[in-house]
Amino acid sequence: MMTTRRHFIAAGAVALSHAMIARVATAQTPPASAGPVDPALIDDLVAANRILVDQGVVDGYGHVSVRHPGDPQRYLMSRSIAPELVTAADIVEYDLDSTAVDPRGRTSYLERFIHGEIYRARPDVKAVVHNHSPSVIPFGVSTVPLKPLYHMSAFLGGGVPVFDIKTAAGGPTDMLVRNAALGRALATTLGARPVALMRGHGCVVVGPAIQMTVFRSVYTEMNARLQAQAMALGAVTYLDDEEARLAGGSVGGTVVRPWELWRKKALAR
Amino acid sequence: MMTTRRHFIAAGAVALSHAMIARVATAQTPPASAGPVDPALIDDLVAANRILVDQGVVDGYGHVSVRHPGDPQRYLMSRSIAPELVTAADIVEYDLDSTAVDPRGRTSYLERFIHGEIYRARPDVKAVVHNHSPSVIPFGVSTVPLKPLYHMSAFLGGGVPVFDIKTAAGGPTDMLVRNAALGRALATTLGARPVALMRGHGCVVVGPAIQMTVFRSVYTEMNARLQAQAMALGAVTYLDDEEARLAGGSVGGTVVRPWELWRKKALAR
Amino acid sequence: MMTTRRHFIAAGAVALSHAMIARVATAQTPPASAGPVDPALIDDLVAANRILVDQGVVDGYGHVSVRHPGDPQRYLMSRSIAPELVTAADIVEYDLDSTAVDPRGRTSYLERFIHGEIYRARPDVKAVVHNHSPSVIPFGVSTVPLKPLYHMSAFLGGGVPVFDIKTAAGGPTDMLVRNAALGRALATTLGARPVALMRGHGCVVVGPAIQMTVFRSVYTEMNARLQAQAMALGAVTYLDDEEARLAGGSVGGTVVRPWELWRKKALAR
Amino acid sequence: MMTTRRHFIAAGAVALSHAMIARVATAQTPPASAGPVDPALIDDLVAANRILVDQGVVDGYGHVSVRHPGDPQRYLMSRSIAPELVTAADIVEYDLDSTAVDPRGRTSYLERFIHGEIYRARPDVKAVVHNHSPSVIPFGVSTVPLKPLYHMSAFLGGGVPVFDIKTAAGGPTDMLVRNAALGRALATTLGARPVALMRGHGCVVVGPAIQMTVFRSVYTEMNARLQAQAMALGAVTYLDDEEARLAGGSVGGTVVRPWELWRKKALAR
Repeated sequence: MMTTRRHFIAAGAVALSHAMIARVATAQTPPASAGPVDPALIDDLVAANRILVDQGVVDGYGHVSVRHPGDPQRYLMSRSIAPELVTAADIVEYDLDSTAVDPRGRTSYLERFIHGEIYRARPDVKAVVHNHSPSVIPFGVSTVPLKPLYHMSAFLGGGVPVFDIKTAAGGPTDMLVRNAALGRALATTLGARPVALMRGHGCVVVGPAIQMTVFRSVYTEMNARLQAQAMALGAVTYLDDEEARLAGGSVGGTVVRPWELWRKKALAR
Repeated sequence: MMTTRRHFIAAGAVALSHAMIARVATAQTPPASAGPVDPALIDDLVAANRILVDQGVVDGYGHVSVRHPGDPQRYLMSRSIAPELVTAADIVEYDLDSTAVDPRGRTSYLERFIHGEIYRARPDVKAVVHNHSPSVIPFGVSTVPLKPLYHMSAFLGGGVPVFDIKTAAGGPTDMLVRNAALGRALATTLGARPVALMRGHGCVVVGPAIQMTVFRSVYTEMNARLQAQAMALGAVTYLDDEEARLAGGSVGGTVVRPWELWRKKALAR
Repeated sequence: MMTTRRHFIAAGAVALSHAMIARVATAQTPPASAGPVDPALIDDLVAANRILVDQGVVDGYGHVSVRHPGDPQRYLMSRSIAPELVTAADIVEYDLDSTAVDPRGRTSYLERFIHGEIYRARPDVKAVVHNHSPSVIPFGVSTVPLKPLYHMSAFLGGGVPVFDIKTAAGGPTDMLVRNAALGRALATTLGARPVALMRGHGCVVVGPAIQMTVFRSVYTEMNARLQAQAMALGAVTYLDDEEARLAGGSVGGTVVRPWELWRKKALAR
Repeated sequence: MMTTRRHFIAAGAVALSHAMIARVATAQTPPASAGPVDPALIDDLVAANRILVDQGVVDGYGHVSVRHPGDPQRYLMSRSIAPELVTAADIVEYDLDSTAVDPRGRTSYLERFIHGEIYRARPDVKAVVHNHSPSVIPFGVSTVPLKPLYHMSAFLGGGVPVFDIKTAAGGPTDMLVRNAALGRALATTLGARPVALMRGHGCVVVGPAIQMTVFRSVYTEMNARLQAQAMALGAVTYLDDEEARLAGGSVGGTVVRPWELWRKKALAR
């Protein structure tokens, strides 16, 4: 196991070793809690899990987290269960090494490092979704770039990078972002963008608030579906850069409208 | 802001300035109400919102309006909420400048000018739907014309124009029809037709009654979906002009059949 | 009106004039009833309407009929309402001229002649479905023949003819099979087959019992959907003629299995 | 009938005749029961039937079995009804000749030999699903191989063979695996793999437990759907062999997550 890991780092991910060392060091003592959060935020996080199911973005897999409002070094996410089953009691607090503050025997998602490392790299990000959004998968295994074809997905305008875990790890893996090094590599690919595809896996979506992040997840799926259909018809006119920038701003201001609907239905169940 | 707007008009929309001046002038005093309408019409409008959701034509966005039966200078539409949540209490009366008669703090859809300007340009129109109907989006960003491939969508027979807001505005915008000038430009593109696509956005559908307008919205979506499938098979035989004209008339007379079903289900929830 | 009709017959449908004359002659006196039928058959007919909705074969349009078990010159079908709303009280008895025995003010489907003329031409047929089954529409406007790609749709094996109403009528129409002449032309195109597509319209499906006819309607839709997908992948191996013949027989013997499920769910609502 | 069968064996399935003779011999006396099983396993089997419906893998057809935990020569499967209707009372015990231990008048699935012969050939297999999974059908009639495009379907990595019943039987059949000889031929095509497609029919999916077998059925359908979409975009990067092997192992360890969700929903109805 250790041999494999050492080989892995040597093979092409030297720049990532820093984060791994940090993780090993801090793994010894459980991190302290940043304290309780507003129950409404927990409700939003529970709702987000169910909304992503309702909208066809996640199935029995996928996860959504929110940064702790009281401490940017902490984030909140469900223990390892299917998103549809998540309740407030399942929410666990993590530090940015993705170590649970108070696990109490609760299992964590193997890929929680996606969340911790993006929060570390992106102070502007307040929520992260990882999913296997079906229409997005084909774009992750193709050379066709995902591009915004209408205003609802204008946030895709700056380009959607594709993370190839084989390159990041220097060879074949089990495709899972199962440690801080891989999480850091994904965060590097994501850069300052709202969405990155993951080859042979799914995607990661981030935003300045949970509502916006869920919104972007929903319309990334929709754009992928519609872009594939449009390409089948022939040449496609995408939003130009300035349209994407302007529409992204305007549509971003309307997110509360679908969110209210989605949240109401999600929590009514 | 004013500079931008002036530039915009100068750039290629001089003919639209009239409507804008009218809007600025009337914006000072709230318009008078044309009086109450039959509650059954309000029920139809509420039902229309839900039907469009049930039929997959709108999601958390999109809006439907009906012209005031007592005054052609007024129309009725929900305040700015998701269509699925609309109830009778959410219906607001607007004048054709799209100024709310009695807003009472209720927010209006940013794109209400679509409705006001079409009612102004088209005395025959009694209801307007604006949506992001998914199968229609690809046709709006393609050069492939939407054409009727069966009798249910025969109303598309005269051709379906595509509104490009970049041309109308003389440059990139946020894609939203957020003022009277753009609404008027869209109405010009629509001309005497029942449907116009909006590039990178969605479409607008009109009709002589709310039932027919909802019907046309549903079968525009269906035709787009089926046309894409038919084109993938090879050459397609569309309705010829005379078939479209005749079928449009005959099928138009049967709209009450699905409407009764749709309305019953929509209002039972 | 009469001129148009005379022109129509002259133009290319001389062979059909016989049926029309018969219809005119018998239209004067309401036909006699063949008597009441087993309520279980009415339940099956009501269930069939709802099953076709549940299975995505019909929407607010489409109709299903069953031949009267006590008199081959009569058939039973709902009055003109959406299939999902049909109850036992809506079932009307018709003669083969498609004249209602006891209309009591109930409106008939405009295209009931599809049913009457097929029952007249095909003594083996005990049930008829007319629908706008979505995946089937593209095949009706294409030159690509619908062919069975798996055992569930083996009944398509003998070929699926396409009825072009323009040819039958000698020119453009409103696409509706709105009289006995057109119904007879459709029956001629159908010949001895279980399914005929209708260009720019939908299809007609027949069988020796209502269960089998509903089954065939469901799997015609499914085959069309899957055949389009298979063709997009490349060359397709269809069932050969002997496989289709053998599988059609074997699978035909299992129809009760899905029927029991479908009926139970349909009548539970 | 006997002539046909003799011809069939002579024509190209001589190697299969052994199994058939065994079946004829044992059919005379009903096999003994291996005794009752844990009711939780029966619940899992009932749940599996409903889960496959919920996930769109089976419709009114298809079946799932589990090997008897107390005797590898026995398996458990529903009598011949639609999967959605299966309850604990419908579960029948079979020996590997697919003879019911205690039929009590209950009809068996015609194709139960799929299960018996795979259990006989594959001691590692504890559960078998046979379905007409819609997105999989096109791959069974095409020369395009089904390949894993993401980690969830990594188990497809070793290749997915296609069973052609015409080759196995030496000529056209009714496409049904209706005897031990054909079941044995299918098991031979399957070899050591988890999935085999069946040309013009569907597929068979096996695994070391019922949870894993249902999981594989669900993600075989999903992979087929997404692979077709990805191929339409252009060249596809599939998991490489080592990625498939590693991901198959890792993802295999997480099957309990969706299973808990699926089972809870299936049994709540």
